[in-house]
Amino acid sequence: MHKLLKDSAIIIIGNEILSGRTQDTNTKFLAQKLLSIGIIVNEVRIIPDSKEHIIECVNKLRIKYNYVFTSGGIGPTHDDITAECIANAFDVKLPINEVAKKLLQDYYKIQNVELNAARLRMARIPEGANLIDNPISIAPGFQIENVFVLAGVPEIFKAMVKDIIEKLKSAKPIKSKSIRIEKPEGEIAEKLASIASNFPNAQIGSYPYKKNLVKGTRIIITHSDILVIDEITKLVKLLK
Amino acid sequence: MHKLLKDSAIIIIGNEILSGRTQDTNTKFLAQKLLSIGIIVNEVRIIPDSKEHIIECVNKLRIKYNYVFTSGGIGPTHDDITAECIANAFDVKLPINEVAKKLLQDYYKIQNVELNAARLRMARIPEGANLIDNPISIAPGFQIENVFVLAGVPEIFKAMVKDIIEKLKSAKPIKSKSIRIEKPEGEIAEKLASIASNFPNAQIGSYPYKKNLVKGTRIIITHSDILVIDEITKLVKLLK
Repeated sequence: MHKLLKDSAIIIIGNEILSGRTQDTNTKFLAQKLLSIGIIVNEVRIIPDSKEHIIECVNKLRIKYNYVFTSGGIGPTHDDITAECIANAFDVKLPINEVAKKLLQDYYKIQNVELNAARLRMARIPEGANLIDNPISIAPGFQIENVFVLAGVPEIFKAMVKDIIEKLKSAKPIKSKSIRIEKPEGEIAEKLASIASNFPNAQIGSYPYKKNLVKGTRIIITHSDILVIDEITKLVKLLK
Repeated sequence: MHKLLKDSAIIIIGNEILSGRTQDTNTKFLAQKLLSIGIIVNEVRIIPDSKEHIIECVNKLRIKYNYVFTSGGIGPTHDDITAECIANAFDVKLPINEVAKKLLQDYYKIQNVELNAARLRMARIPEGANLIDNPISIAPGFQIENVFVLAGVPEIFKAMVKDIIEKLKSAKPIKSKSIRIEKPEGEIAEKLASIASNFPNAQIGSYPYKKNLVKGTRIIITHSDILVIDEITKLVKLLK
């Protein structure tokens, strides 16, 4: 659809999301940030903390999209297996990264906490990867080729996203506009379909809402060219 | 992992989720309901309102899992294409379903609203499918073989889930237990890994939390046999 724009996929890793115990909010946050710099999210996959699933999923998506972002599984415990899966997916080694080790050493020293073997696992970074800054709990994320590996804890995830968005900013932004029509979807659907068919490169989404017992429709028009959006907006407003 | 349990996948259809405009909450709701009747969610995919994506995704997942649940794209507008995609995926026709049509006729008649062509689209149901009850806005979801097609609007989605959960109740429930350890993940990681390695069929998740400046770890043990959970619980409590 958006041939000129860069596309991406998000992989949310974690049994706690799949069991319904935890509400994923990382997808929404990252998708908005990416869209603001012209990167669209084409698909999201939520997968279990399982070696086979992670490796297979990363390898499938990294050849399909410009960028892949993963969330979760880079902490110190046995179920944090993302780093080793990524190393496996790229067929590279997973040594202790000396920069990451130093960061953790300094951080734990101040806190008078031991940098034991479990914590040191967080310094294992696939060969050839660049570190992603974690100002919250220091243990870094990393980028290898087009894959960005981020923490799952929302606070840390957000801080890491901030770091990478700066680096990815060069892409062309997508624009979008939202219009409310105080008529139910069924009322305007046919005319809207005919507008949409005239603009095959635009995304024209239709979402029902209810306010003070009035059923209405929110129309969201998305395109990389604001002039095209304006043209569609004029036509959509005629539906009012 | 859970050989005795039934597995499933959820497909969330909608550009509004991928753009970050809307927070998906249907996954969490459905996953919890399914888990309570012994069906685990193995993966979730969030995909765009695109014919190719929907057909490919449904066809891949329906042969891989016992059940597939879709959310979104069954309203009256041009971007509501799920029903035709499902018909295409199963290679069946998509006629107006007379029961669904009658439901809509009666509903709109009371409201003095015209059942126009756009609204009538919501009565198109793939051949061989069973209707899923929608007490909120009447237009039904449907089940064809192992695929359950539900509305995206959370209020309607929840009502439809209620209908299907009753029908799926026969599966064996999974049990799980949550234990809080007032030590940071890094402190208990090694011992926890050794416990986990002794119970390969259990899921033992580890999630950091922070409360009143104390860093702690929430351990979640999941297994179909409560006796196994109790055994693991005893060992985990020794980490306190």
